[in-house]
Amino acid sequence: MGPAMPQAAALADRPAAGRYALDALLADIAGIEATTELVDRKRRSRDYFWYSPILQEQLKDKLADVVVTPGDEAEVLRIAAACARHRIPLTVRGGATGNYGQCVPLEGGVVLDMARLNRIKWQRPGAVRVEAGAKLFDIDAATRPSGFELRMHPSTKRASQIGGFVAGGSGGVGSVSFGGMREPGNIVAARIVTLERAPRVIELRGDAAQKISRAYGTTGIITELEMPLAPAQSWIDVIVAFDDFIECVRFGHAIAMADGIVKKLLSAAQWPLPQHFAAYRSFCPDGKSLLSAMIGDMSMESFATLLASTGGTITYKAPSEDVLSKTPLYEHTWNHTTLQVLKSDRGVTYLQCLYPHDRLVEAVAQVGAKFGDEVHQHLEFIRLNGTMTASGIPVVRYRSPERLYEIIAGYEACGVMIANPHVVTLEDGSRYKRVDADQLGFKHEVDPMGLLNPGKMRSFAPQAV
Amino acid sequence: MGPAMPQAAALADRPAAGRYALDALLADIAGIEATTELVDRKRRSRDYFWYSPILQEQLKDKLADVVVTPGDEAEVLRIAAACARHRIPLTVRGGATGNYGQCVPLEGGVVLDMARLNRIKWQRPGAVRVEAGAKLFDIDAATRPSGFELRMHPSTKRASQIGGFVAGGSGGVGSVSFGGMREPGNIVAARIVTLERAPRVIELRGDAAQKISRAYGTTGIITELEMPLAPAQSWIDVIVAFDDFIECVRFGHAIAMADGIVKKLLSAAQWPLPQHFAAYRSFCPDGKSLLSAMIGDMSMESFATLLASTGGTITYKAPSEDVLSKTPLYEHTWNHTTLQVLKSDRGVTYLQCLYPHDRLVEAVAQVGAKFGDEVHQHLEFIRLNGTMTASGIPVVRYRSPERLYEIIAGYEACGVMIANPHVVTLEDGSRYKRVDADQLGFKHEVDPMGLLNPGKMRSFAPQAV
Repeated sequence: MGPAMPQAAALADRPAAGRYALDALLADIAGIEATTELVDRKRRSRDYFWYSPILQEQLKDKLADVVVTPGDEAEVLRIAAACARHRIPLTVRGGATGNYGQCVPLEGGVVLDMARLNRIKWQRPGAVRVEAGAKLFDIDAATRPSGFELRMHPSTKRASQIGGFVAGGSGGVGSVSFGGMREPGNIVAARIVTLERAPRVIELRGDAAQKISRAYGTTGIITELEMPLAPAQSWIDVIVAFDDFIECVRFGHAIAMADGIVKKLLSAAQWPLPQHFAAYRSFCPDGKSLLSAMIGDMSMESFATLLASTGGTITYKAPSEDVLSKTPLYEHTWNHTTLQVLKSDRGVTYLQCLYPHDRLVEAVAQVGAKFGDEVHQHLEFIRLNGTMTASGIPVVRYRSPERLYEIIAGYEACGVMIANPHVVTLEDGSRYKRVDADQLGFKHEVDPMGLLNPGKMRSFAPQAV
Repeated sequence: MGPAMPQAAALADRPAAGRYALDALLADIAGIEATTELVDRKRRSRDYFWYSPILQEQLKDKLADVVVTPGDEAEVLRIAAACARHRIPLTVRGGATGNYGQCVPLEGGVVLDMARLNRIKWQRPGAVRVEAGAKLFDIDAATRPSGFELRMHPSTKRASQIGGFVAGGSGGVGSVSFGGMREPGNIVAARIVTLERAPRVIELRGDAAQKISRAYGTTGIITELEMPLAPAQSWIDVIVAFDDFIECVRFGHAIAMADGIVKKLLSAAQWPLPQHFAAYRSFCPDGKSLLSAMIGDMSMESFATLLASTGGTITYKAPSEDVLSKTPLYEHTWNHTTLQVLKSDRGVTYLQCLYPHDRLVEAVAQVGAKFGDEVHQHLEFIRLNGTMTASGIPVVRYRSPERLYEIIAGYEACGVMIANPHVVTLEDGSRYKRVDADQLGFKHEVDPMGLLNPGKMRSFAPQAV
């Protein structure tokens, strides 16, 4: 989906048997697909953490000892039991499209590749039950004929798996209407396997399912998810060009606040970011900031009416085509924007912000004035706790870790909250700098030895021996 | 749908020919269905204004000279031309479920009954084009097989027509998700006939369609509407009982703010209002305040999860059945609540409020403490300009006009805006006490002689002679 990942300068090619009782583990899981080939282990010990020069240094040498690919939940249970017995860490891997090493095995051990647990168990109007390794793209393809689609997906929809999205992501395309994954009702249920000598299968329903949301697989191995669906709509992809970025943001906000206009995506990107939107470059006039949107077919006329009172011009309009063969418009929003820039300019990285809902446009202008060309803003409108606001993923010219932290402080001084994407632990990356107490408590129940993705939940100290 | 309307003590049975050239008009519209029978004119000169003792006095004697029932738009054009030629007022009548005399002919003349213009012109995914006299119930019935339904409807859905809803209403069941009719995108287009010697047909699209929204038929005779649709959902009717009204409001607000919980209705009613909910009385425990809701099937589990942390108890839960033969739950919300009380207690009337979104619960508590048993509150959560808030239709023990105005002032002192439903003009009833300038300007174009529903748009002074 992106360019080839840069090869780490020197991967620590530790003999696998050095740290863990790997042979004993392999004997226990005989018959289950597994590989200790270095090339496989290298490839499947990484995600898109290399967007961050800081994480690239920290994570480039991390390496699984073995990659195991279970075919069903029974095999997951056998693997979990074996890891518990031999005290070998287990890190779950989905589509590996995360950006902070969510699925990087910090302490080696087993990487559990979920790709084969990709069945759709059932669907009914408004809900679908799937195995955790099912691809978002395939879920939508399966539910569309019944008139439904996932409520939200990351910009990496063509590659991501549902389990990884729930465990490693927070929201995305669709969150302008439904809010993030964390909003009540956006995960119906999760089925997990515990990491114990006698692993249990637990069904978490309703609010309890939030225990696995954005926990990076530290609170149980997700094997199935029951997800609410949205009625599938005829979406229209639209690009609107503005001379001025602030005017672009203001129009995006007007559409965001218009509850009669059905939308799935509203992303405002400051020039020169659109210069890097290769697949859509001919619709990105030089010097113009862009609003990229997905609008319900029946709302396009109203969208155009509101646009008429601004200086914006529609440069692209076409029905959203959800086909693997074409680069979708949404692959220029959310953190795909960073990727589009990185394809031709390796000197940038990014931040993750949450703008204040009650002075959104002002905050955008304020940080813009503060950092000039060092930071190019784009932001995605989202609902959060019932209120419309915007998250933003500015593309930052990278100089040094120190300067990056200065920029973070500068944003925070403007009232913009930062979820730092240059750290690997849940706590450091969180906007509130702590793990949800419920997740921490739950981890003691389901992973008493602390073997699930160790190093990611810093606050956790195993009590079991 | 309700009890029989109380008969006016003494209807002014003026001879029709006294004021207007009625015979000339009837000759001009020969062949079009019309009646001058007193019983018809009495019956079709009224709406539900009698909820207001003040309006009952003002309006009970108003009477059309003739009721005309066109069968198509061509007939509407002939009627409009005849009215212009003979300078006879024309007041359009839909389902007549309004509460402020929206369709009462203040100056007599023609009442134009739209019941026969009830065709569905076409439908496509997400939109429907209908004649103005189509009933909301019939539109939903026609679009449901294609997987769509109207975005919103008043509690009078079983009787209302779409033209009357757009011209005389503001929102309703569904506005908790889509906002009111006035939000951009909630009316796609309107087709109107002007009131001139040579009447024109005008298509108003996009924002322009708002010129006929809640104008009581003063800005053109609506003959067709193009309305956006929502995907039809499997709705569950739910009643939740709470010991305390404020707790009920608080829970309603939590569900309102949860964007992952799909809903069409959230109405909180203070005990003893539910005592009057005859059709659902067995689900209304004595002394309990109720939240009546319509929740998407797939969101019921999350709804129950959020409820678990409150003191509320579900007393009723069943799929919404949209059949004419059964009293729907929503007929106990919005202004139907007043009607349910009026069925057994003629000593009450009502107000229309908009609570402040940022101190909603506090304002509810404040007015509650101020008026005690003289006012019983219920409120419906709605989106307004992109923000979740609530409108309310308190049921007020009626003493005198003076006391009613004292109560209005008391509400306003608590920061609650009042749209006074005890007045007949657009201006007096508006929250902002003025007619939208665009509507006023537009009226000069389409009704230069001021013959459309005269007396309703106070600011209008005809320029034409």
